[in-house]
Amino acid sequence: MTQPITSTLDPEQQRIAGDALRGTVVDLIDLSLIAKQAHWNVIGRNFRSVHLALDELVTAAREFTDSAAERATAVGVSPDGRAVTVAEKSGAIGFPDGWQQDTDVIDAVVGNLAAVISRLRERIDATEKADPVTQDLFIEIAARLEQLHWMWQAQLATA
Amino acid sequence: MTQPITSTLDPEQQRIAGDALRGTVVDLIDLSLIAKQAHWNVIGRNFRSVHLALDELVTAAREFTDSAAERATAVGVSPDGRAVTVAEKSGAIGFPDGWQQDTDVIDAVVGNLAAVISRLRERIDATEKADPVTQDLFIEIAARLEQLHWMWQAQLATA
Amino acid sequence: MTQPITSTLDPEQQRIAGDALRGTVVDLIDLSLIAKQAHWNVIGRNFRSVHLALDELVTAAREFTDSAAERATAVGVSPDGRAVTVAEKSGAIGFPDGWQQDTDVIDAVVGNLAAVISRLRERIDATEKADPVTQDLFIEIAARLEQLHWMWQAQLATA
Amino acid sequence: MTQPITSTLDPEQQRIAGDALRGTVVDLIDLSLIAKQAHWNVIGRNFRSVHLALDELVTAAREFTDSAAERATAVGVSPDGRAVTVAEKSGAIGFPDGWQQDTDVIDAVVGNLAAVISRLRERIDATEKADPVTQDLFIEIAARLEQLHWMWQAQLATA
Amino acid sequence: MTQPITSTLDPEQQRIAGDALRGTVVDLIDLSLIAKQAHWNVIGRNFRSVHLALDELVTAAREFTDSAAERATAVGVSPDGRAVTVAEKSGAIGFPDGWQQDTDVIDAVVGNLAAVISRLRERIDATEKADPVTQDLFIEIAARLEQLHWMWQAQLATA
Amino acid sequence: MTQPITSTLDPEQQRIAGDALRGTVVDLIDLSLIAKQAHWNVIGRNFRSVHLALDELVTAAREFTDSAAERATAVGVSPDGRAVTVAEKSGAIGFPDGWQQDTDVIDAVVGNLAAVISRLRERIDATEKADPVTQDLFIEIAARLEQLHWMWQAQLATA
Amino acid sequence: MTQPITSTLDPEQQRIAGDALRGTVVDLIDLSLIAKQAHWNVIGRNFRSVHLALDELVTAAREFTDSAAERATAVGVSPDGRAVTVAEKSGAIGFPDGWQQDTDVIDAVVGNLAAVISRLRERIDATEKADPVTQDLFIEIAARLEQLHWMWQAQLATA
Amino acid sequence: MTQPITSTLDPEQQRIAGDALRGTVVDLIDLSLIAKQAHWNVIGRNFRSVHLALDELVTAAREFTDSAAERATAVGVSPDGRAVTVAEKSGAIGFPDGWQQDTDVIDAVVGNLAAVISRLRERIDATEKADPVTQDLFIEIAARLEQLHWMWQAQLATA
Amino acid sequence: MTQPITSTLDPEQQRIAGDALRGTVVDLIDLSLIAKQAHWNVIGRNFRSVHLALDELVTAAREFTDSAAERATAVGVSPDGRAVTVAEKSGAIGFPDGWQQDTDVIDAVVGNLAAVISRLRERIDATEKADPVTQDLFIEIAARLEQLHWMWQAQLATA
Amino acid sequence: MTQPITSTLDPEQQRIAGDALRGTVVDLIDLSLIAKQAHWNVIGRNFRSVHLALDELVTAAREFTDSAAERATAVGVSPDGRAVTVAEKSGAIGFPDGWQQDTDVIDAVVGNLAAVISRLRERIDATEKADPVTQDLFIEIAARLEQLHWMWQAQLATA
Amino acid sequence: MTQPITSTLDPEQQRIAGDALRGTVVDLIDLSLIAKQAHWNVIGRNFRSVHLALDELVTAAREFTDSAAERATAVGVSPDGRAVTVAEKSGAIGFPDGWQQDTDVIDAVVGNLAAVISRLRERIDATEKADPVTQDLFIEIAARLEQLHWMWQAQLATA
Amino acid sequence: MTQPITSTLDPEQQRIAGDALRGTVVDLIDLSLIAKQAHWNVIGRNFRSVHLALDELVTAAREFTDSAAERATAVGVSPDGRAVTVAEKSGAIGFPDGWQQDTDVIDAVVGNLAAVISRLRERIDATEKADPVTQDLFIEIAARLEQLHWMWQAQLATA
Repeated sequence: MTQPITSTLDPEQQRIAGDALRGTVVDLIDLSLIAKQAHWNVIGRNFRSVHLALDELVTAAREFTDSAAERATAVGVSPDGRAVTVAEKSGAIGFPDGWQQDTDVIDAVVGNLAAVISRLRERIDATEKADPVTQDLFIEIAARLEQLHWMWQAQLATA
Repeated sequence: MTQPITSTLDPEQQRIAGDALRGTVVDLIDLSLIAKQAHWNVIGRNFRSVHLALDELVTAAREFTDSAAERATAVGVSPDGRAVTVAEKSGAIGFPDGWQQDTDVIDAVVGNLAAVISRLRERIDATEKADPVTQDLFIEIAARLEQLHWMWQAQLATA
Repeated sequence: MTQPITSTLDPEQQRIAGDALRGTVVDLIDLSLIAKQAHWNVIGRNFRSVHLALDELVTAAREFTDSAAERATAVGVSPDGRAVTVAEKSGAIGFPDGWQQDTDVIDAVVGNLAAVISRLRERIDATEKADPVTQDLFIEIAARLEQLHWMWQAQLATA
Repeated sequence: MTQPITSTLDPEQQRIAGDALRGTVVDLIDLSLIAKQAHWNVIGRNFRSVHLALDELVTAAREFTDSAAERATAVGVSPDGRAVTVAEKSGAIGFPDGWQQDTDVIDAVVGNLAAVISRLRERIDATEKADPVTQDLFIEIAARLEQLHWMWQAQLATA
Repeated sequence: MTQPITSTLDPEQQRIAGDALRGTVVDLIDLSLIAKQAHWNVIGRNFRSVHLALDELVTAAREFTDSAAERATAVGVSPDGRAVTVAEKSGAIGFPDGWQQDTDVIDAVVGNLAAVISRLRERIDATEKADPVTQDLFIEIAARLEQLHWMWQAQLATA
Repeated sequence: MTQPITSTLDPEQQRIAGDALRGTVVDLIDLSLIAKQAHWNVIGRNFRSVHLALDELVTAAREFTDSAAERATAVGVSPDGRAVTVAEKSGAIGFPDGWQQDTDVIDAVVGNLAAVISRLRERIDATEKADPVTQDLFIEIAARLEQLHWMWQAQLATA
Repeated sequence: MTQPITSTLDPEQQRIAGDALRGTVVDLIDLSLIAKQAHWNVIGRNFRSVHLALDELVTAAREFTDSAAERATAVGVSPDGRAVTVAEKSGAIGFPDGWQQDTDVIDAVVGNLAAVISRLRERIDATEKADPVTQDLFIEIAARLEQLHWMWQAQLATA
Repeated sequence: MTQPITSTLDPEQQRIAGDALRGTVVDLIDLSLIAKQAHWNVIGRNFRSVHLALDELVTAAREFTDSAAERATAVGVSPDGRAVTVAEKSGAIGFPDGWQQDTDVIDAVVGNLAAVISRLRERIDATEKADPVTQDLFIEIAARLEQLHWMWQAQLATA
Repeated sequence: MTQPITSTLDPEQQRIAGDALRGTVVDLIDLSLIAKQAHWNVIGRNFRSVHLALDELVTAAREFTDSAAERATAVGVSPDGRAVTVAEKSGAIGFPDGWQQDTDVIDAVVGNLAAVISRLRERIDATEKADPVTQDLFIEIAARLEQLHWMWQAQLATA
Repeated sequence: MTQPITSTLDPEQQRIAGDALRGTVVDLIDLSLIAKQAHWNVIGRNFRSVHLALDELVTAAREFTDSAAERATAVGVSPDGRAVTVAEKSGAIGFPDGWQQDTDVIDAVVGNLAAVISRLRERIDATEKADPVTQDLFIEIAARLEQLHWMWQAQLATA
Repeated sequence: MTQPITSTLDPEQQRIAGDALRGTVVDLIDLSLIAKQAHWNVIGRNFRSVHLALDELVTAAREFTDSAAERATAVGVSPDGRAVTVAEKSGAIGFPDGWQQDTDVIDAVVGNLAAVISRLRERIDATEKADPVTQDLFIEIAARLEQLHWMWQAQLATA
Repeated sequence: MTQPITSTLDPEQQRIAGDALRGTVVDLIDLSLIAKQAHWNVIGRNFRSVHLALDELVTAAREFTDSAAERATAVGVSPDGRAVTVAEKSGAIGFPDGWQQDTDVIDAVVGNLAAVISRLRERIDATEKADPVTQDLFIEIAARLEQLHWMWQAQLATA
């Protein structure tokens, strides 16, 4: 099948931007599923604040998923965010099953955020020449995820 | 690990309601991922109305996922909505990769809705005695999914 | 003409639920037209509060009409809410023409509500086995109409 | 019974304005019932956009019904919008029963709008001298219905 | 002093429209002060509904005052709505001092509305040729005041 | 147990302000329960306006309860608003059981308001020197309750 | 006194539904007063999140109180929610006076919720035949209270 | 006629508070009419900002009028805000007729505010002993009018 | 090409109304572009108030453009609002390029408003017989533009 | 005339950024006029969804016009968005007159978007060194226009 | 320079009120800067609830700063809230640099609130005779700060 | 003390971004305090528009302060925005004490904006390699401050 959506990028630019965006879609869907899983399974003294903070993370991850997927379509590349694809290709580090203590949840969230941010930082470099519009989206996503990375870390930090 | 959340149901009631709820969580997450996948990849003359209608389906699927998962926790059962679990256990019939014609999208949505509703109908029967509160949630979900089932079918129907 | 919308119910369930829903659509449209008629023609010392309360009844009747009609479509049955059909088949007891004293309006509203609720109660029984989703909608409608039945009665009651 | 609401119009002005308003109330209620009927029974490729557009027509018809009926009361004339009256006296051309193809729905809506607008245009002339306030309301209703007449026609037109 | 605001009307048109608008400003300010006076001093079984309905009348009178005064300025005529001017020139019939029974309040409101509407009807005729824009404003005001005239009358009417 | 919350008042000021606030909490909770009881049990021609007005009283009483209780905590005094405490110590005059005629409801509300206001007036005097911040809260509560006292009286008054 | 509000239930159905509803009104009022008491008196490291969560419980309890009381009136039974009645008949387990540590508050809330839910479960069984409309309300209340029961438990649980 | 609304003040307190409130009602109505007059008739380079600022003054004056009038009723005194009363008794210094230069408008507003504030300051003293609730209202009004006094002065001031 | 949208007007009425509407569309688009040009290029002491007032003019011009264009379509006439058409046929008097002093901007806006209003007044006469619905729209537009004509003039006027 | 607004850019940077911004203002105004023209003149089966989608394009084009024009002023360059300038200098490809079939409208919109995006891409390169703030604005505009480019294309694409 | 804003207070009253208000402005600005500093630098298990609660404190401090500063202007006294002035004259006790443990943050907030409240209490006494309007503002500020003082203390308290 | 928040930047990148962000926090806090100082102390003919425009500047400065400070934390650097730090290190040029003429206020605001923008432009260069996410934030801040720089200049400019 030929690609039905044309791109304003040349083929090489399109390939670079498209790969980076498809990878980001997968990472962010997984991040949103992990955050929901934690939202339901967290227990412990900080249940309430962790439970609420996780939904903010879900909201952020879902909105950026949509932005990245629609940016892929805008450069003529079909995004793939189906469960099987996410299960196979996500760069997040995952989450254990069953009820989880609040401190373990915080550790897991910090770790998943760090893994996803690290891949985003690489994609910011990779797309600088190929497509500054896509790079700008990655910068916006990184800014928000790094803010969340601080906030989740701050809950475990000691002065 | 002992279950840290107690239930107001007896163990057998809890098992029946818990299994039905965990299965529903998986089906609905898959339905939301399929609908998003279609939302991004649909092309054709009815692009705009199908694109928008898919986001209504996403919203419905996400809200019911949360309701089902939190009902599971309310009866002391840990829900599992991680990507790997969804990829393995979903009762939906899936969605092909790449760009999709609008009529094919409509067919796929009707088929996935029918599969999920069919499992819900079984769970409505299964939970009637075990837990009328859980059953009531399934009835509410079925009512909305059957409404959507009509609306998506109506787009392909001929008088 | 074959039915273009398929149902998740079997034919007998569909017939029972469909008949109950079509009847309810007709009753509720008539109730909304009666309430509007009263809204415009009421006179007397309690004009203002009766005039406003009638619009709450109109709103309730219209919303439930839509719910019942769309439930009919969801089970593959075409609803019929045209003026001629309503004029012929409504189970409401009607309303006289011309200006009406506020106390007479209250009597008429209580009477029409009682008639419609009575038919709803029968349909709650009739649909219990055939379709719990439809039954659940009738229970919701009955709950609201019985609340209004109390409120309109309360205006004429004496301790 | 003497008329309990006095009018600021003389008897002949009141008769002309009152007749025109009572006729308009009946036409507009029928239009709203027809639009709802179509809203529920439409099928076909443009289901979604037709289904939504019909609710805009319902909203317009209902608001203008209220305006016309309350203008009748304001000139001391009792409006009559009961189902039997609508079934007998409406100037709209009606709507068939059962599921309807989207193109047929559009045809039927255009036809009903044209019929109702035609009667409104006559009433605009008839009330010019009798009551400019009533005429002004008819002009406002005609403006909106003629806008809808264009929009519904535009869906069937070819350049 | 020469008039600092020019008009798009000729001098005679301006004189006719200006006089009608200045008179309307005075009548409507008085109507708003009377309605507030009644709002504070009403007593009796229908206190609450009369008290609330009076504030709707205040709101209507104030908004139309502003419309009429700004229409005067738009045709280059200075409006005068000071207390002394209102006290001298109002066409309303006034309101007694002290606490007032609710039925007397209703009578007084109906009477004041009738007086103000009667003068408006004359101004609708007077401005038809001179300025259709000003006439259109008077028609809008009359439509609303006649609606209120019905609603206030309806509270005392008997069938 | 030593008091865990320190106060910016000296012990005598704290005792005076604390007693006044604890008493007010009890009175206002009782007032809100009485108003709800009346809201449900009122019958008669003014049912609707009395029913609605009672919910405004409930809202006012609940908001002031919270203000008074949190002012008590702010001066280091634990408030007590449990059912048993309210049943024993309330200064309101109570409400009979069962359905109540609207006129009787109005009488009872006026009487309860008068009783609660009377105690508030004493507390305004008592706290003037001890704590002007607490006094200011009592003045605000009295202003609103006296406004309601007028409005409820106005329904029974005759000129 | 004869009952001034008629019922659409037969006398035995009315007695069963009425008793269940009156008992629920009392339990829920007590739950709301206990939650407010805790809201004001909680101290400790989790003060803020417990303080906020308690107001969500208050809101839920108040809304369900109103639903249950108005359902009682809808079946012709007078509800009784006065302080003395609540103090005598509540099925909640109560709350100590004075400042309370946050962990003790959580224990007390979980205990009170469990007691109220247990009585609700019995009433769901008791009303199944007598009045499915009342039963449906109890199912809705139980669903929400069991969700809160999980959330409050989760704060004390360890994995 | 005996006073139909009882007061929680003794007769002498009632007389002092009542006189002060009735005088304030008159002053504030006049202030609102003057501000509207200026709003319509201002011309000059600062037209727009003066025109808008005058409507803020109108809003403030109207809201405080209502507060003062309803406080009068709350202490059993009938307020009088009719045009003739305002024309005779207002303590404001008035406003000339016809179009007015913006600088003259500012001068006039500052002067009228100063006159009204001066009388308010006397009433704050007069009501301190008689009724602290009424005094508190005057303090609130003075605070807002003095703020406006600064803002209007600031437009003419030079450093 | 035959006209694909039918009209409820006869051909001569349609021609008159259509010409008037097409001319108005062009004038109003030009007015909105001129106002935006001024919004960006104004400088001087009244920058802020002129800058803001110009956006209110833009909003008004854009909304009336849409009303006029859609009224043209409603009578079966295609509107033409493309840049070339506006550049050729606008009846506005234009605006110089580059930065503009605030007083010059005010002069230019008053002049452009006067030119557009003058043409509107002619069209009000021209359409009176041909189509009162179109005339009513022109009256509404004239009312608003004349109000703005006063407000912009008022900024330059001296008493 | 010397430039009255100073810039934080040096003259060469200012010239580059200024030219790019002035060109963008012209392109975007034309795009908004073309989209409005299409909004009014579209006919055909997809009338409704195309008609609505065009208004989203209008909104986007207008908001970016303002951003680009105000960025020009922020770097001390006067923008020019008058009709004559747009008619002469726009880089869009235009739109035919008269009624247009929906598929032709979609083609024309895709073509105009492609032309405007192409010029934007050049300006993103041109301003990278001269002014990263201006470049960032162009990136934001390109992101949104490319998203719309996909959505409009998707309506014509086939898999 | 003479004072350009006149006061309705005499010189001595103005001096007392002015000094108290200027001091309060300084204290509250410092409180808002300290709370923001803490908002950014807090770490530890209660990060989230402390982080959010600090922004409520910032909001309160900023709103009261504005009230106090504008009250100073209203009595003709220029407020001074520049960084240097705040650094020199604040009565708050300050906040250390760098990351801070949540418990230390709570201690510091309680201490700063106590210091600011203590100075406010003195100013409430000082302004009682000089200006009851200013005193009333201080009472309002104290009420809110004392409420916050309790809430922050409650987080460290033990029963 | 070791840094408790880790960074996704390497130490040198962190040092560069951190220094730039800490400096920006200080500049922006000072800008907000200067704007508030001017907001309170401005006098003169343009008082109202300058007074309002200053609050827009305050809002912008406060929001960007928070963004910069939280970006510092996100890269593991503690921000310092205490009064003493601002007083010592701000790059703004300050504001005189006492009442200030509106033209002087405008001059001072333009000067302070220019000083802060100049330092921001340097930081945009400095962070380009070190951290594009931080650079993107500075570009956004510069865009808004340069827009305000134009708007404030425009008030003093002459063509």
